[in-house]
Amino acid sequence: MELSEDQLIEAIARVLSGEEPGVVVGIGDDAAVVERGSGQPVLTTDLLVEGVHFERASISARDLGAKAITVNVSDIAAMAASPRYALVSLAVPLDVDAAWVMELYGGIREACAEHALALVGGDTNRAELIVLSVAVVGEVAPGRALTRSGARPGDRIVVTGSLGAAAGGFALSRAHPSRAAAALSEPWGRELLEALARPVARVGEAKVLASAGVTAMMDLSDGLAKDLSRLCLASGVGARVRTADVPVAAALVEGAEMLGVDALALALSGGEDYELLATMPAEGFEPARAELREGFGVALTEVGEIVAGEGMIAVDADGAEAPLEPAGWDHFPRGSLGA
Amino acid sequence: MELSEDQLIEAIARVLSGEEPGVVVGIGDDAAVVERGSGQPVLTTDLLVEGVHFERASISARDLGAKAITVNVSDIAAMAASPRYALVSLAVPLDVDAAWVMELYGGIREACAEHALALVGGDTNRAELIVLSVAVVGEVAPGRALTRSGARPGDRIVVTGSLGAAAGGFALSRAHPSRAAAALSEPWGRELLEALARPVARVGEAKVLASAGVTAMMDLSDGLAKDLSRLCLASGVGARVRTADVPVAAALVEGAEMLGVDALALALSGGEDYELLATMPAEGFEPARAELREGFGVALTEVGEIVAGEGMIAVDADGAEAPLEPAGWDHFPRGSLGA
Repeated sequence: MELSEDQLIEAIARVLSGEEPGVVVGIGDDAAVVERGSGQPVLTTDLLVEGVHFERASISARDLGAKAITVNVSDIAAMAASPRYALVSLAVPLDVDAAWVMELYGGIREACAEHALALVGGDTNRAELIVLSVAVVGEVAPGRALTRSGARPGDRIVVTGSLGAAAGGFALSRAHPSRAAAALSEPWGRELLEALARPVARVGEAKVLASAGVTAMMDLSDGLAKDLSRLCLASGVGARVRTADVPVAAALVEGAEMLGVDALALALSGGEDYELLATMPAEGFEPARAELREGFGVALTEVGEIVAGEGMIAVDADGAEAPLEPAGWDHFPRGSLGA
Repeated sequence: MELSEDQLIEAIARVLSGEEPGVVVGIGDDAAVVERGSGQPVLTTDLLVEGVHFERASISARDLGAKAITVNVSDIAAMAASPRYALVSLAVPLDVDAAWVMELYGGIREACAEHALALVGGDTNRAELIVLSVAVVGEVAPGRALTRSGARPGDRIVVTGSLGAAAGGFALSRAHPSRAAAALSEPWGRELLEALARPVARVGEAKVLASAGVTAMMDLSDGLAKDLSRLCLASGVGARVRTADVPVAAALVEGAEMLGVDALALALSGGEDYELLATMPAEGFEPARAELREGFGVALTEVGEIVAGEGMIAVDADGAEAPLEPAGWDHFPRGSLGA
């Protein structure tokens, strides 16, 4: 079914009704106008292209819409900022129908509602592939943004939650159909796919970490090894990572054998976890861990420490050392301009 | 040549060096942080997809980069606002080389410099098609944004500059090669192509119009007839357009016969002019026209008036009336979410 302009607008309007706080001029004019906040604006954008970041057959429109918002919110969170406004540009091929587009905007709305984010504008187009580009504007108290460049020798390296589940979900989605079906009959299989389809942005957790004296922070989109190497480069430091302490997702540990993957390798180098990676003085760790556990039910794990110099060392359970290569989700320059 | 991540980052860094005013955290972190301004933030975005909005063979990388910025700046201008910060997301196929990407960012930098716009972040990816998504954040004095919804019966309908040149350039770019070559040997031919490749955003002109008491304003991206119908719908009014008064671009008039196009039809329904369309009380017109001519060397032309009710009427030089159909660059929902 071909989707006309009027049908699309009607579909979008149906899922996006409602007044949004802080919006002076919303969807439908040349640009949106919003209220000036009390903090510094924080800006990020992410582009999702069919065939590169997702396959139409393996993610629902609703999950895709929610994920496009969440990955941007995660970037805002990583600065210890609060998301406020979203712009969404969409291009769809002729064979995508109105129901798919409505589901997509339904997922966008869900994720926006979850983070009290107002969708204020965007752009819609035809294209040969589905392209979804989201920009989010957030806000942070002046001078309080947390960058990647503040890590100092002696700081502890910490991560929220657990790692590798999304990469396990990706492996599952590419497994032989019979193996994938068997995996999906298990709770761990469904959990891995859910981690890939519906990542969680750690907005509140990031603020707790910022208050606990974190010196540098970023979100894990391309895998711990790759992203930590970026943090080290930005801060001009090196790192030692105790691999036995890396919090590998339990569902991944459980399913690794059936999926034929190395759970620790995926936890180190798999992408799309959207957990927070941070560095902090040792004394801040226990209070921060207690607050995340009590306030959010989210784990905070120390996985190593920042050292002077450059490069990364992996230390295993027996104390053996090896270089930790910054291998990861570096399929190409994703994120190389920041965001 | 395949472009590695490091090569791309190096290429981009080469063209984007320099400190930017107002930027607290720029390219390279999870998100950008900028100084809080004194006005209300104004947000817009546009997505350009190869094969839909441009063909690689018919626009240079430099022009494409500049145009991607300019069309967003034009949306900010249409709100009577000032552009401040840009985010650029790019996806390129493997067969695009580093030189092309550098040229693209060169064009982006030129257009940003022209409007004192800081490029603060973005995202880079692989894809099967070139995709360029730009978001621009601007600023407007609180309560001074001009929307599409303020037109009142009796207001004059005005446009800046002249119309149809970009559509003429598009016709030229699709003409038979021998005809295109002949056209390009003429000054008008080069002027039409230039209008398509390097549109101009009317930022200063928009502020003059805002001070002159304009009641509604938008930029002309999809053709006068289509865009005026949107302004009328947003304002709940109708319009009468005197077609003989529409300022058809001189180069288009000159080349129309050779190109086999109807110049007035392109001026009414061709897209990508990026001139301003505004409505204003009659008494404001002459002072505004004088100020635009003296300050910018840009024409302001009255093409009709706003009437009560709905729908649009075209009145020709003999006074004959006919419905003016909102036909235009409505290839699909481009811009239907605003922006």
